[in-house]
Amino acid sequence: MKNALPQIVITLSLPAWLERALPPPDTAFPAVEDRMRFVIGLAERNSAAGTGGPFAAAVFNGGTGRLIAVGVNLVTSLNSSIAHAEIIAIMLAQQWAGTYDLGGSGLPPLELVSSAEPCAMCLGAIPWSGVRRLVCGATGEDVTGIGFDEGAKPAIWQRELEERGIAVMQNVCRAEAAAVLRRYAEQGGIIYNARQGKASDRMRPDAAQ
Amino acid sequence: MKNALPQIVITLSLPAWLERALPPPDTAFPAVEDRMRFVIGLAERNSAAGTGGPFAAAVFNGGTGRLIAVGVNLVTSLNSSIAHAEIIAIMLAQQWAGTYDLGGSGLPPLELVSSAEPCAMCLGAIPWSGVRRLVCGATGEDVTGIGFDEGAKPAIWQRELEERGIAVMQNVCRAEAAAVLRRYAEQGGIIYNARQGKASDRMRPDAAQ
Repeated sequence: MKNALPQIVITLSLPAWLERALPPPDTAFPAVEDRMRFVIGLAERNSAAGTGGPFAAAVFNGGTGRLIAVGVNLVTSLNSSIAHAEIIAIMLAQQWAGTYDLGGSGLPPLELVSSAEPCAMCLGAIPWSGVRRLVCGATGEDVTGIGFDEGAKPAIWQRELEERGIAVMQNVCRAEAAAVLRRYAEQGGIIYNARQGKASDRMRPDAAQ
Repeated sequence: MKNALPQIVITLSLPAWLERALPPPDTAFPAVEDRMRFVIGLAERNSAAGTGGPFAAAVFNGGTGRLIAVGVNLVTSLNSSIAHAEIIAIMLAQQWAGTYDLGGSGLPPLELVSSAEPCAMCLGAIPWSGVRRLVCGATGEDVTGIGFDEGAKPAIWQRELEERGIAVMQNVCRAEAAAVLRRYAEQGGIIYNARQGKASDRMRPDAAQ
């Protein structure tokens, strides 16, 4: 860990099980519930494989339902707090598209399907990504209910997305999505919040503990 | 762009000029203004090299001022809306530390120095990273003043960080930091907001334009 020289390459590899879990090329998921169930299945497998938190996401062609990119939470296995499912899926979709704007001309309307309501970081990432719609399974309450911190979101985050032209659909297969979260917690999965959400006094000697 | 199979590896390489711009190993920047001026210099070089937006960040040992990791905005050159300077610096620092929690035991107190106030995504990422302090140069107004969208931040975002044990220091060398932003805009740098912040009607046929 003590390499003297700052590193300048980051490689994020998805786990081997995920490659095997991918459907045949160009598989389409016409109904939004089909898309969500596929994503919930990835969250369940990620949890069972121990490769990260119980969260998955995918980018689909919102018209045809064709799968474009997948992502699972890889915080613990990649040692990266940035490696949330939505971030991975957006990065892979942009790599596929060859552009930083998934809403750019020449692309079909793309949607991000997430097994759970995004945290503050991922919510902030969504407008920059260019996706046209966000579909969520479990709610923020389901996520915080097992101990994860969702961060400081705008009070009405749905409106913030909608004002930027991103439609929001919530509670799609919520019970199935929430069940994956509960199983993860029951089986002792790592709740990996930095410092468990507690304040540090190391750089704030005056901070209340 | 039309690979049929979803991709499962992401590689983020920093530009070659950045490797050459790094100081000798274990260089320390004892004063916070020294850290900020180093970061502002990277933002200026990133802008001049055309490798991304006029933003840079770095993680330092908050005690000794030793440089741990660097990041510059690579949105346009890596075709990734996630590749903001703060995100890159956090990922590289965590890769150096071998953990997703830069506030974990055994690590010195680490701070993130950003040439400009973070956008909503990067603000959301900071609590998850484990850094103990955020130091900003240019303000959010300086950033939006040249046309970049900062996203939907909490009204008092400083308090949200401080409640999570992250100290915030603003306006460090602000004039120098803001000058880099203005030069970027004057020289016609790309303001890469997705769809220029405009709403799309493709998945919302009822949306007002």
